[in-house]
Amino acid sequence: MKHKTVFILISFLSLVAQSQNLNDYKLWLKYNKIENHDLSQAYSKTTNAVYIANIGDIIKNAKRELSLALPQMLGTQVTYESSITSETTLIIDVFNNLPEDLKLAVKKNIENINKEGFIIQSISRNNTPLTIITSKEEIGLLYGTFRFLREMQMHENISAKTIVDSPKIQLRMLNHWDNLDRSVERGYAGFSLWNWQKLPEYIDQRYIDYARANASIGINATVLTNVNANALVLTPMYLEKVEALANVFRSYGIQVYLTARFSAPIEIGNLETADPLDKNVQEWWSNKAAEIYKRIPDFGGFLVKANSEGQPGPQNYGRNHVDGANMMATALKPFGGNVIWRAFVYSEHDDTDRAKQAYDEFLPYDGSFKDNVIVQVKNGPIDFQPREPFHPMFGAYKKTPLAIEFQITQEYLGFSTHLVFLPKLFEEILDIDTYQKGTGSTIAKIIDGSLYGNKLTTMAGVTNIGTDLNWTGHPFAQANWYGFGRLAWDPNLNSGQIADEWIRTTYTNDKAFVEPIKKMMLTSREAVVNYMNPLGLHHIFDTGHHYGPGPWVDDLGRPDWNPVYYHNADKNGIGFDRTTSGSNALEQYAPFLEKAYSNTNTIPEEYLLWFHHLPWDYKLNNGEILWDGIALKYQEGVDQVDDMIKTWEAAKPFLNEEQFNEVHMLLQIQLKEAKWWRDACLLYFQTFSNLPLPKGVEKPAHSLEYYQSLKFPFAPGIKPSWN
Amino acid sequence: MKHKTVFILISFLSLVAQSQNLNDYKLWLKYNKIENHDLSQAYSKTTNAVYIANIGDIIKNAKRELSLALPQMLGTQVTYESSITSETTLIIDVFNNLPEDLKLAVKKNIENINKEGFIIQSISRNNTPLTIITSKEEIGLLYGTFRFLREMQMHENISAKTIVDSPKIQLRMLNHWDNLDRSVERGYAGFSLWNWQKLPEYIDQRYIDYARANASIGINATVLTNVNANALVLTPMYLEKVEALANVFRSYGIQVYLTARFSAPIEIGNLETADPLDKNVQEWWSNKAAEIYKRIPDFGGFLVKANSEGQPGPQNYGRNHVDGANMMATALKPFGGNVIWRAFVYSEHDDTDRAKQAYDEFLPYDGSFKDNVIVQVKNGPIDFQPREPFHPMFGAYKKTPLAIEFQITQEYLGFSTHLVFLPKLFEEILDIDTYQKGTGSTIAKIIDGSLYGNKLTTMAGVTNIGTDLNWTGHPFAQANWYGFGRLAWDPNLNSGQIADEWIRTTYTNDKAFVEPIKKMMLTSREAVVNYMNPLGLHHIFDTGHHYGPGPWVDDLGRPDWNPVYYHNADKNGIGFDRTTSGSNALEQYAPFLEKAYSNTNTIPEEYLLWFHHLPWDYKLNNGEILWDGIALKYQEGVDQVDDMIKTWEAAKPFLNEEQFNEVHMLLQIQLKEAKWWRDACLLYFQTFSNLPLPKGVEKPAHSLEYYQSLKFPFAPGIKPSWN
Repeated sequence: MKHKTVFILISFLSLVAQSQNLNDYKLWLKYNKIENHDLSQAYSKTTNAVYIANIGDIIKNAKRELSLALPQMLGTQVTYESSITSETTLIIDVFNNLPEDLKLAVKKNIENINKEGFIIQSISRNNTPLTIITSKEEIGLLYGTFRFLREMQMHENISAKTIVDSPKIQLRMLNHWDNLDRSVERGYAGFSLWNWQKLPEYIDQRYIDYARANASIGINATVLTNVNANALVLTPMYLEKVEALANVFRSYGIQVYLTARFSAPIEIGNLETADPLDKNVQEWWSNKAAEIYKRIPDFGGFLVKANSEGQPGPQNYGRNHVDGANMMATALKPFGGNVIWRAFVYSEHDDTDRAKQAYDEFLPYDGSFKDNVIVQVKNGPIDFQPREPFHPMFGAYKKTPLAIEFQITQEYLGFSTHLVFLPKLFEEILDIDTYQKGTGSTIAKIIDGSLYGNKLTTMAGVTNIGTDLNWTGHPFAQANWYGFGRLAWDPNLNSGQIADEWIRTTYTNDKAFVEPIKKMMLTSREAVVNYMNPLGLHHIFDTGHHYGPGPWVDDLGRPDWNPVYYHNADKNGIGFDRTTSGSNALEQYAPFLEKAYSNTNTIPEEYLLWFHHLPWDYKLNNGEILWDGIALKYQEGVDQVDDMIKTWEAAKPFLNEEQFNEVHMLLQIQLKEAKWWRDACLLYFQTFSNLPLPKGVEKPAHSLEYYQSLKFPFAPGIKPSWN
Repeated sequence: MKHKTVFILISFLSLVAQSQNLNDYKLWLKYNKIENHDLSQAYSKTTNAVYIANIGDIIKNAKRELSLALPQMLGTQVTYESSITSETTLIIDVFNNLPEDLKLAVKKNIENINKEGFIIQSISRNNTPLTIITSKEEIGLLYGTFRFLREMQMHENISAKTIVDSPKIQLRMLNHWDNLDRSVERGYAGFSLWNWQKLPEYIDQRYIDYARANASIGINATVLTNVNANALVLTPMYLEKVEALANVFRSYGIQVYLTARFSAPIEIGNLETADPLDKNVQEWWSNKAAEIYKRIPDFGGFLVKANSEGQPGPQNYGRNHVDGANMMATALKPFGGNVIWRAFVYSEHDDTDRAKQAYDEFLPYDGSFKDNVIVQVKNGPIDFQPREPFHPMFGAYKKTPLAIEFQITQEYLGFSTHLVFLPKLFEEILDIDTYQKGTGSTIAKIIDGSLYGNKLTTMAGVTNIGTDLNWTGHPFAQANWYGFGRLAWDPNLNSGQIADEWIRTTYTNDKAFVEPIKKMMLTSREAVVNYMNPLGLHHIFDTGHHYGPGPWVDDLGRPDWNPVYYHNADKNGIGFDRTTSGSNALEQYAPFLEKAYSNTNTIPEEYLLWFHHLPWDYKLNNGEILWDGIALKYQEGVDQVDDMIKTWEAAKPFLNEEQFNEVHMLLQIQLKEAKWWRDACLLYFQTFSNLPLPKGVEKPAHSLEYYQSLKFPFAPGIKPSWN
C-alpha cells in the first residue's frame, strides 16, 4: 500500500562535524590528503627515498614532521635511507656534509643565505631527479623541511623551482603575557598553556605542538611570562619547570626568555634594595643569571617592563632606564643573553601628552645601552589601537637597536570574537616611511637592521595563544599567529600572500574559496577601524577590560586612562590636537612628516583626529562634514561585517557544517558588537555635535543610557583581582 | 664498498603519537574500528537497515550518534529507512509506536522499566533477525542507543542477549564548582568549560560533546555554577547564556540547575534584606523563578550552600535552614523545580566536633522541608577525604530525601596527577549498612529511595571536568566521571565491572591489557589512602590548596581548619577520640555500629584513628604497634604506586608511545608525591612517637624542616585572590 522509501544518509558530514574542533587544533599543519592524482604521484616520486642526516635533535624533529605529514598527504609511508644512494630522491643535510657534486650544485645559493636560512633545490643527478634541502646549520634544515611541506600543502610544483630563503630578522619572538596562576593578561583564547603544576615531569603534547607550529613559521624565541612579572618564576622551583619547557623548545630551534621583575632581589633574594648600582644587587643578578644558564645553556635573556604602570624599576632608586638595563645586561653578557627593555612608559606625574612621553624619556639614552640590550617599542605611541600612526621612536633611535612589539592578541580589536586579519595592520606599519634617514627609511628597514646597521634585530608579538582547543579562540585568529611569524621572518612579505598561504594550508586550495575569503580577510582590519575608531579616533574603549565602547568614561585615576582624554569631544569639535597649537607631538616625527601631518590638507585622513581637534562641520576630502563622515564610517564598518557574513555564507559549499557554523556564529557576534560600537559612540558624540545622523546610518537600537549602563565584571583578559 | 641499508620507518606510531591528545578528547566514545571480521560482519548485519523514529530532538541525537559511531566501528555508512519494512534490521522507537507484533514481543520487559529505561531485544520476525531498541519515552531511546553502541565497543554478542535497564536514581547530577571568571574551585583539569564571554551566540562544540558523554552514562542534570555562588548568574545577561546551554543540553536529556546565592535579592534585586520570611524577598524569588522558567521551561532548580563557610543564609536573619529552603521551594514549585539544600555546615562559633555539627543541626528538620526540597549530604562527615566513615545523616534522615554528594574532582586525592579509581570509594560508601532500619539499610537503598520510599532521589558528583584537551587532566580520571555516572544510574553496580567497561571502551578489549589494568585501578584507591591518610587519619593536608601534606599546620583562623585538630598527635598517641570519652560522634550512628565502632576490637581498622585516640604502642590486629603500623602503611602506599608503574610498563605493548608516556609521566609524579607524603608525615609524627622507623620503611629524603618550608602559592583549584 505504501511504497518503500530508503534514505541513504551521508554521515560524512556529521562525522567531520564531531571532530571539527579537533581538526582546528592542527592549525595550518593539517596536511590534508592530496586528491589530485598526478600531483600526489609527483610528490610521491620526490619523497620516494629520503636521506636525512643524523645530526641532532632538531633534525630528528624534521624527520618526525615528514613522517607525520607525508603519509597523510600522500597515503604512503616514508622510506628513509641510511646513506645517499643512486636511488635517493630527497636529501636533507647541511651544506658541509653534502657530497662534492651536490655542493657544487647549490654553492651559488648557499652564499645567499644566513645561518638560519635554507635552500630547496631540485637537480638531475645521473639522470635521476633529486631534491635537496640544505642549509648552513641544522636549524635551516628544519625550516626547509617545513617550507617543503608547505609547498606541498599549497600544491606547488616543488621540483620546478628553487627556493632560497633566510630570515631577515634575528629574534622572531612571541611574548606571552601569562601569569603563574595560568590567567593570561589580555588573553581571549582560554588560559595559559604552561601547566606549572604538572611541570617539570609532565610534558604536555601541547608544548610540542606549540613548538612545531612556531618552527613551521620560523619563530625562534618565546617569553613565557607576563611583562607584569612575578619574581617567583626566577626561583629554583619554577626554573626547574622552565628548564623542562626549554628542553622541548630547543629541539625546535626556540629559545626561552623570561620576564624579570626589577624588584626580584628584594622579593626572592632577601635584599633590602633593588638599586641597580648596588653591588649586592648586581651580584644577585649575576648569580641568578649563572643559576639559570646552568639549567638552560641557551637561555635567551630577560624581557623587562620597568617603571611603567606600577611596575618597579631603576627610577625607584633615583636611577634611570640605562642603569637598570645595563646592570641586567652585564649579568647576562658572560652567557650570551640579552636584555629586552620595554619603552612603554608614561607617568601619572607627567601631564605631557601620553603619546610623547616614551620618546621624550628614551631618546637621550640612544647609544648608552650595552650591546646586548634591545629596546622594545610598541608599534604605536599609545597602545595597540585598531589604527595608530607609528611610534616616533622608530627612526629616531639610531644606535641602540629597537624591537617592534605588535599585539597579536586582540585587546582592542574585538577579543577572539572578531575576525580581523592583523598582518594587514602589521604590514601597514612596517611599510611606513619614517623619513628619518631620507626617503625609504621604512620601519621594516629599521627593524631588520638594514637602515642603521644594528647587529641585534627583533620582532616581538604579544601572543593570542591559549588553551582553547583551536589555540586562538577564533579560527581565523590562527592566521594572525601565522602572519606574525611570517612577517618576523620577512617584514617585506605582502599580507595578501600571507592570507593566501594560510587559507590554502588551513582550508583548501580551491580558488573559488581562496579568493573571496582572502578579500574578506584583507578588508577585515579596515572594518574594525571603521566600526570602532574611525578617522584617527583612539582609546575610547570601556574601562579595564577594554571590551566594547566607553567614550564617556572620565572617572579613572589617571587622566590618560580616560577615553575623554583622547577624543576631547565638545561643542566645538572632536580630536586630539597634537600640532603646535596642542601637545605638539608632531615634533617627534621627521620634518617631512611633521609638516605633512600638521596640515589638514596633507595628512592622511585615517590619522586626522589623532593629530587634530576639528569642528563638527569641518569638511572632509569627500565633501562630507566631519560629523557625517564619522557617522558614515561607523556605518561602513557595520556594512563591511555584513559583507563578511555574506562572503562566508557564499563559501558554505566548501565547508563542512561545523566549520561553517563556528565562524558564522562568531561573525554574528562581530556584527552585533559592531552595531553596539556604532550606536554607543554616535549617541555619545551626538550629545556634543547636536547634529542628526546622516542618511544611510541606521537608528540606534537603544538609548545612550542603556549603553552606558552595560557592565562586564567578568570580561576575560584581566586578572580577577582587578575587577 | 658499503652495503646499502634501507630502513622502513613505520610512521604509524608517530602519527598516532601526534594526535593522542586529540584522541583522549573522545573519552570512552572512541568507537574504534572493530578488527574482528566475523564480529564486524555480525554487527553490520544488525545495523544494515535502521528504522529510527522521528519524534524530537533527543532521538535526532541518537541518530547522530549512530551515524558517527557505526562508520568508525564498521567502516560502513548507515542506511536509514523511513518506515519499518521487512528488511529492517534495527528498530529504534518508543513502545507505543511499535507495530502490535513487536509490542507483544517486548511487552513483558516494558513493564520492568521506568520512564527513562530501555530495552534492547533481538527477535526473529518473519525468519529475519530484528533488533529492537525501545522505551516508554524518547529519552530511553537515546540511553538505549548509547548502550547498544557500548555493547558493540565491548565486542558483546548483542543479538544473543536481551538488555532491560532503567536508572535507579532520578537525578543523576554533576555539580560544577565553576566561577564566572572561569576559574574552577577545586578544579585540576584546566578551567571552566562555560565560555560566558562568547555565550549565548557561540555554541562551542565542547558543550555538545560534554552532553554526549553525559548522556552516554545517563547523567541527566548539571549544576553549572559554584556552590560558593555569585548572584550575577541570576541576572538577565547571564540567564540568556544559561538558556543557550540549556537548549543544547535539553536534547541530550540533561536539565540545567544553578546555584542560588542566598543574598541575591540584596545584591542584584535592590532589596535591603534577604530574610526568607520577608514578603518582598519571597516575591523576588518567585519572580526570579518565573523569569528563569520563561527562558528555560525545564529548568531544574537551585542548589544552595547557605550559612556555611561564610556564605549568606537564613541564619543571617534569625531564620533556619527550613525557612530558607522552603521559601525557595515555594518559588520554584509552580514550575516543577527543586531546591537542593546542602547540609555541609559547621560553625566557628560551635566547638563541637566538626564531624557532628551537620547532623546535630539538620536532624531536627527531617520532614519539615517542602516536598520539592532535597538535602544534599557529602559522603562523609568531614570533607571528601581519601577515606571517611559514612555521614551519619544517611539513615537518620527518614522523611526528607537525601542526595549523596561525591567529589569526583580529586581535591584530597592527588589533584589530576594521581591515578585513583574513585568508583571503588563510591562503591564502598554505597554498600555500607547504616543499620538504621535494621540489617540491610545500605546507603544505596537510602539514595535510591527504596529504604524509606522517598519520591525524589539524587546522586550528585562534584565534577573533575575542565578545559584540558582530555577533559579531566589525567586520562584515568575520565574513568571517575564515567564511573560516577554509571553508579548514579545504578548504585548497585560493581566497581570492577565499571573499570572493565571503561578500559574496554577507552583502550582495548584485549584481556592481557584489561585484567592487569583493572587490578591496578581497583588497588589505586587503597594506595592513596595508605600513602596519605592510613588507619583513619584525616584532613592532614596543607593549607588552602590541600596540595600535599601539612599535618603540622596549627595556625589557621578556625580550629577545625587545622590538621592538628584532626590527628591530635602527642606523646601519648594519635587519633580523634569520638567515643563517649571524647566527642561522642559515635552516638550519631545506629546502636549496632555505635557499639562496634566504640570498641577497638570490633571497629574496622581502616576507621581506627577516626574514632579513637590510641597510644603509639597500641597493638594492631597483625601484632604491630600502632607507630609501626602507620609507618608501614605509608610505605605500602608508596610500594603500591611502584607496582602501578610496573603494571603500566608491562602494558606498553598495547599502547602507542604517547599513550604510554602520558600516564607514565603522571605515575612518576604520583610516586614522588607518595614518598613526599610518607616522609613528611612520618618525620612529623615521629616528633611525638619518638620511635624509630620500622624495618622496611625507607629513610626520608629530606628533613622535616624542608617539608615544612615548601610553599605552593599558585597551586590550582583555589581562586587567585585566596592566595
